[in-house]
Amino acid sequence: MPLPAEQQIPTFPPPEAESEESWLWSQIKAEAHRDAESEPALASYLYATVLSHPSLVRSLSFHLANKLCSSTLLSTLLYDLFLQIFSSFPSIRSAAAADLLAVRHRDPACISFSHCLLNYKGFLAIQAHRVAHSLWSQSRRPLALALHSRVADVFSVDIHPAARLGKGLLLDHATGVVIGETAVVGNNVSILHHVTLGGTGKAVGDRHPKIGDGVLIGAGATILGNVKIGEGAKIGAGSVVLIDVPPRTTAVGNPARLVGGKETPSRHEDVPGESMDHTSFISEWSDYII
Amino acid sequence: MPLPAEQQIPTFPPPEAESEESWLWSQIKAEAHRDAESEPALASYLYATVLSHPSLVRSLSFHLANKLCSSTLLSTLLYDLFLQIFSSFPSIRSAAAADLLAVRHRDPACISFSHCLLNYKGFLAIQAHRVAHSLWSQSRRPLALALHSRVADVFSVDIHPAARLGKGLLLDHATGVVIGETAVVGNNVSILHHVTLGGTGKAVGDRHPKIGDGVLIGAGATILGNVKIGEGAKIGAGSVVLIDVPPRTTAVGNPARLVGGKETPSRHEDVPGESMDHTSFISEWSDYII
Amino acid sequence: MPLPAEQQIPTFPPPEAESEESWLWSQIKAEAHRDAESEPALASYLYATVLSHPSLVRSLSFHLANKLCSSTLLSTLLYDLFLQIFSSFPSIRSAAAADLLAVRHRDPACISFSHCLLNYKGFLAIQAHRVAHSLWSQSRRPLALALHSRVADVFSVDIHPAARLGKGLLLDHATGVVIGETAVVGNNVSILHHVTLGGTGKAVGDRHPKIGDGVLIGAGATILGNVKIGEGAKIGAGSVVLIDVPPRTTAVGNPARLVGGKETPSRHEDVPGESMDHTSFISEWSDYII
Amino acid sequence: MPLPAEQQIPTFPPPEAESEESWLWSQIKAEAHRDAESEPALASYLYATVLSHPSLVRSLSFHLANKLCSSTLLSTLLYDLFLQIFSSFPSIRSAAAADLLAVRHRDPACISFSHCLLNYKGFLAIQAHRVAHSLWSQSRRPLALALHSRVADVFSVDIHPAARLGKGLLLDHATGVVIGETAVVGNNVSILHHVTLGGTGKAVGDRHPKIGDGVLIGAGATILGNVKIGEGAKIGAGSVVLIDVPPRTTAVGNPARLVGGKETPSRHEDVPGESMDHTSFISEWSDYII
Amino acid sequence: MPLPAEQQIPTFPPPEAESEESWLWSQIKAEAHRDAESEPALASYLYATVLSHPSLVRSLSFHLANKLCSSTLLSTLLYDLFLQIFSSFPSIRSAAAADLLAVRHRDPACISFSHCLLNYKGFLAIQAHRVAHSLWSQSRRPLALALHSRVADVFSVDIHPAARLGKGLLLDHATGVVIGETAVVGNNVSILHHVTLGGTGKAVGDRHPKIGDGVLIGAGATILGNVKIGEGAKIGAGSVVLIDVPPRTTAVGNPARLVGGKETPSRHEDVPGESMDHTSFISEWSDYII
Amino acid sequence: MPLPAEQQIPTFPPPEAESEESWLWSQIKAEAHRDAESEPALASYLYATVLSHPSLVRSLSFHLANKLCSSTLLSTLLYDLFLQIFSSFPSIRSAAAADLLAVRHRDPACISFSHCLLNYKGFLAIQAHRVAHSLWSQSRRPLALALHSRVADVFSVDIHPAARLGKGLLLDHATGVVIGETAVVGNNVSILHHVTLGGTGKAVGDRHPKIGDGVLIGAGATILGNVKIGEGAKIGAGSVVLIDVPPRTTAVGNPARLVGGKETPSRHEDVPGESMDHTSFISEWSDYII
Repeated sequence: MPLPAEQQIPTFPPPEAESEESWLWSQIKAEAHRDAESEPALASYLYATVLSHPSLVRSLSFHLANKLCSSTLLSTLLYDLFLQIFSSFPSIRSAAAADLLAVRHRDPACISFSHCLLNYKGFLAIQAHRVAHSLWSQSRRPLALALHSRVADVFSVDIHPAARLGKGLLLDHATGVVIGETAVVGNNVSILHHVTLGGTGKAVGDRHPKIGDGVLIGAGATILGNVKIGEGAKIGAGSVVLIDVPPRTTAVGNPARLVGGKETPSRHEDVPGESMDHTSFISEWSDYII
Repeated sequence: MPLPAEQQIPTFPPPEAESEESWLWSQIKAEAHRDAESEPALASYLYATVLSHPSLVRSLSFHLANKLCSSTLLSTLLYDLFLQIFSSFPSIRSAAAADLLAVRHRDPACISFSHCLLNYKGFLAIQAHRVAHSLWSQSRRPLALALHSRVADVFSVDIHPAARLGKGLLLDHATGVVIGETAVVGNNVSILHHVTLGGTGKAVGDRHPKIGDGVLIGAGATILGNVKIGEGAKIGAGSVVLIDVPPRTTAVGNPARLVGGKETPSRHEDVPGESMDHTSFISEWSDYII
Repeated sequence: MPLPAEQQIPTFPPPEAESEESWLWSQIKAEAHRDAESEPALASYLYATVLSHPSLVRSLSFHLANKLCSSTLLSTLLYDLFLQIFSSFPSIRSAAAADLLAVRHRDPACISFSHCLLNYKGFLAIQAHRVAHSLWSQSRRPLALALHSRVADVFSVDIHPAARLGKGLLLDHATGVVIGETAVVGNNVSILHHVTLGGTGKAVGDRHPKIGDGVLIGAGATILGNVKIGEGAKIGAGSVVLIDVPPRTTAVGNPARLVGGKETPSRHEDVPGESMDHTSFISEWSDYII
Repeated sequence: MPLPAEQQIPTFPPPEAESEESWLWSQIKAEAHRDAESEPALASYLYATVLSHPSLVRSLSFHLANKLCSSTLLSTLLYDLFLQIFSSFPSIRSAAAADLLAVRHRDPACISFSHCLLNYKGFLAIQAHRVAHSLWSQSRRPLALALHSRVADVFSVDIHPAARLGKGLLLDHATGVVIGETAVVGNNVSILHHVTLGGTGKAVGDRHPKIGDGVLIGAGATILGNVKIGEGAKIGAGSVVLIDVPPRTTAVGNPARLVGGKETPSRHEDVPGESMDHTSFISEWSDYII
Repeated sequence: MPLPAEQQIPTFPPPEAESEESWLWSQIKAEAHRDAESEPALASYLYATVLSHPSLVRSLSFHLANKLCSSTLLSTLLYDLFLQIFSSFPSIRSAAAADLLAVRHRDPACISFSHCLLNYKGFLAIQAHRVAHSLWSQSRRPLALALHSRVADVFSVDIHPAARLGKGLLLDHATGVVIGETAVVGNNVSILHHVTLGGTGKAVGDRHPKIGDGVLIGAGATILGNVKIGEGAKIGAGSVVLIDVPPRTTAVGNPARLVGGKETPSRHEDVPGESMDHTSFISEWSDYII
Repeated sequence: MPLPAEQQIPTFPPPEAESEESWLWSQIKAEAHRDAESEPALASYLYATVLSHPSLVRSLSFHLANKLCSSTLLSTLLYDLFLQIFSSFPSIRSAAAADLLAVRHRDPACISFSHCLLNYKGFLAIQAHRVAHSLWSQSRRPLALALHSRVADVFSVDIHPAARLGKGLLLDHATGVVIGETAVVGNNVSILHHVTLGGTGKAVGDRHPKIGDGVLIGAGATILGNVKIGEGAKIGAGSVVLIDVPPRTTAVGNPARLVGGKETPSRHEDVPGESMDHTSFISEWSDYII
């Protein structure tokens, strides 16, 4: 059965002459235009955040600045800062574009690119983090940490500015995500809410998880210490993981164990960070639960 | 030992000629009046949010509008929207009244109806959700999602506008609650903080839990997929539930198992969503913990 | 290898003639001055929150007031309130100083005292709680609850005003922490994010955990009921604890069990709330995970 | 030479079946729609203030509420108040409509009805005054005076709530206009900026000017005491008037004298409050100036 | 005929044991209490600005701070500043009290002390000026000028911080008043709106008017240069005065002349700054006007 | 007698290699730095408005945006707009620089360039007008008028966006200035507060005054109609001018007459718009005043 029109995801790649970013921007403007027409009560918001802007970078800078500003960090200051960083680093812009595509394709509840841009606190928190990380890398640490603090307050998402994140990420729901200072997250990773990539609690140094490409981490999972979650691995919701997980295997439970057993773990072929299959391991688990 | 006066919950039902809603409103005004007298520093707040309004609906609309507004979604717009929806749908008003009574009777930390109205983010998030759900049902999806996003930012409570919620609900503490698009929650359910009613991660369609009447879900429990939690069931704190739970049984653990065993689960007589008994299953569990 | 200069924690105690509070204040001003010099974009913020104030108490009151104010609870009212309580209760001021030292010494991601003062929502939430608790103790309950509600909204940290907290506390990351009405937390305790010190759900009365001095509670741990966590105990991340835990032992898992076994639990010598060692129990656990 | 299209004033009266108010509203929406299309940077503002509203009364209430609100008089409160008064008093609504037409027809700088509605502080101050006057008439004096004070702060227009104003008024530029407690202003009057209708400074009672229909009062004119300015009279800019002025005569100068002399004043046929002819008396005055 | 109750001005002096300031404060609280009772829509405002405060100084500091704050000059900073200056200088407090009495007794439109405190921009501008003047006198010029600028923006009253003002002043309506750097204003002076005490435009130095005690200056009068307006003199509305005016005489017109003639001016016995008699010179002027 | 150091105006022109704009900017930063050092309470404001910015254009855009924004016209939108116009039109930037120099040199009360930039509402209103005029010239009239309206509200200065203004202008005090649609103002003109360059009130077309270079217009003067005020003329305070004034003559009074008489007017050599000599014509006038 075909999806209703509004749920059909526009086909990418775009025509050759156009960049991904500008193709996305034209999609977003078209969506926002359609929504403004059908919902006058929202039109002011849509014009302010999307339709009055000449580019995705300006729209995103405006939106983040107005979300993250406070009485002591003015929106104009943040707007300037976001604009400057986004304009200077094409890699941040293309990562944002990849994230938009990731959310749109992986989350069935996401009905449009503009929905993601405007409403996904996970998406917004990641983009603000990319700016904070850029500041951190330039040794502008106090400003990076102030921005980090605003993101933690406003979105309840706590990503240390030093953490290194890939692109094509989905932070679904996002509330309560904590990612520590020396964590590394690969590309095309999907992370649900309340996930912790935490430290060992011991002294300074490299002490947070390294997450491979294409990993899926279920809601409430806690991964602690400088452990390696192999590419394409899957971490079950509510799991507590303290040691390495091999690629394309599934770890579940508290304490986490590998589905199929430590010695002969089941290996899956799909990339769970992209397929978002959280629960197909139910069958293997079901003989001992409920 | 009788409760101190301030903790005695006013008896309901009210005299015949009066509606539940107007009875509650008179209680709330009396409480707010008493508090304004005793605490001048709070009187301005109490007059603004409660005592200057002619009805519960206006007070609630005002309070939500001022909590959820932002620089791009003005309080006057939200006030108008809430007022219009609350005025048009008596069922939403009566559900709000039932929620107020539920919080007041089930949570021993709730000292008055006005305490709930003013300070319980779970209560406020649910009422905002009811408005978003009404918009969603009228195919005003972009506005519903914008409101959803504000609730997720401000209260860290993430209820998809399409989710169907019953009445007499208690979202205790509420931070971090996530309820997905196709979830259904019955009447008189109590849900603690950090609870997830999440999807399977697989494609579009009916993919979230169905929670029966009178269920109690403990803090941090994660229920995933289109599973059925039977009426009067109890889900232990921190549990991870991936398959159906029979009525009036208790599931605990990660992965969750039934107290009493899969074959002969213990059945309780009370309605835990109302009695709020989280831990009486300790005795049955205690032989294998600590 | 010596730490880089910015990570060297200034030695305390200060010279005799100076109080801890004024020594901390001079450190904070020096840090803020250095940061304002090196980052003009942040200087306005640093002058507003730190450098324009004559004392730590005024800086903290200003910062909390501007973080927690809303359209119906004005910053000037909150500023007055904080200033009055902090000025009247030296014990609250010294607890705040102890918390600053705790965060700075225990969290390797904390690079300065001003970093903690300005950006740690856990630190700020605790100080606001101390004020709410003081109001509660003076029977100014409606105001205490209004403040409690603002902290829960803004920081996603939910500490009931009646809860009794010690000093030298670290709420790391802090999002999602819930501490109930009759909970008691000792000195030098460290609590990670998403930790619940919750009730049993049964009637009124003493129904929340009692946490001894020096305890460390890992991320996402849920401790329910009037149970006693002995001094120096350690609760593993994601654990669900429903009964007492002896001093200097470690409880992990859902349901939680003692490392070393119920009868002969391992005892550690360090104070985990101070050493922050989350994961040294991995080795003992590792034979049955992954 | 025909006016350019944008300066042609739409012909009124409207078709029979339509009220003046709804005709104006349809004009205003059409103008705002056109402007939103041509100027995306202003579209958000135009949707928020005009295009999202179902009626002129709601648009005006929204706009005034957001202009006049302060940190202690919230926009939602003012919105409610304006809406309630405008809805209850059709005469206020029709006076507002008459004022819109007056501004549009008399001021060549006014390019559209929406221009007047959105940008003319004189128009907005008068409408807020009508609400304050209604409150005053209902003996709600403290609220009337609070609103009066906001108008004086925001628009620098000071009209005492007790003053009685007609309809079809133009307050051009408006800054500095002062109209005292017992002043009465007729219909179709035009008043330039810095005009004072002031008291005698002596005790309580009827002590302010009475301005007849169709009067024109030039910039900076000061009229003091319970004097009568006859219908269709004209008061020159900068005049100081302390005694009655006969109908359809012109008073100029400080102290003011009648053009044509006290005994045989020139009488004009036009209605200067409508024709806005400020300066045709130059010829008669020119032999003694410059 | 006796005045209606609400217009009877409470008799002063107060009973012996009480200071003028505390007597006024008790009057203001009683008025605000009465108004809050009768007008719930205003109660929040009245509690925030008056009834929640323990003293006139705190109420006034709060009110001014919230009126004069901006996105870059926060209310908490201004509140602190006002409180500190008012607390340190009893002479400023007693001047404010004298101004309150002056407004209440001289302006028949002023219905209560709280009306003046809350709504009279002239009163508020003078009190802010007294603070700015105190800062100026302490050589804190940049802060004095920033405050001056806020008063000029918010109230359209422009009093240079260096100007020296007496007590018992009434700035009626106040919009457009300009008082220059080296101006001096005596006690018990009444000044209407649009009055200028301006410079000569020539170089640095003492170049602004000196206004004696008890002077009354009518609306729109312009007094320029280092001229002396003798005690008890009266300046007619709209007058332009460039040279000295003897005590207890009346100057009117543009250019101003003395009523009664330069050689034999009429002298009045009353103190016009207190009696507020603007227009009794009409009879003497009437043979050549209108 | 030499001026005190703070009143010595830095000598211009700057060294050859530097533009006037960048020289001014370096002066302003030095002044703001000195003030921030000496007045910590103002440092946050000075960093936000001046010291955090890399150029005068950004500082001015920030300051205007935060002064003129409202709940429906966000500061980020205005900031973008100002920045874009100032960046695109060097002539606007050089006019702003000329205005800064004019204020600093002509107004003895102006103690520094930063004082003018931050606090002079006349200076700020003119710069906002230049932006509005640029928009008007590009046929972006609705946006130009919205900006015009904000300036009229915030500064009580009402300059129609179509009016053409020269450079090197001083609007001293500025409150109440009104400049109409077809007015033209030359270079090096000084205009005091309450001055009106108004229309004739008759139909559409060229109907406002034309002010020559170097003119000085005193406080409260009203000039009406398409009249020509010759270069270097002087208009006395409170004058009402309805016909042409020859170059380098002085018109005073209501109605205005030429000093020296219509046939043989006195001519002055200085440029009063620059020398600011308001009152040297007193001697000639003094035989018939006071």
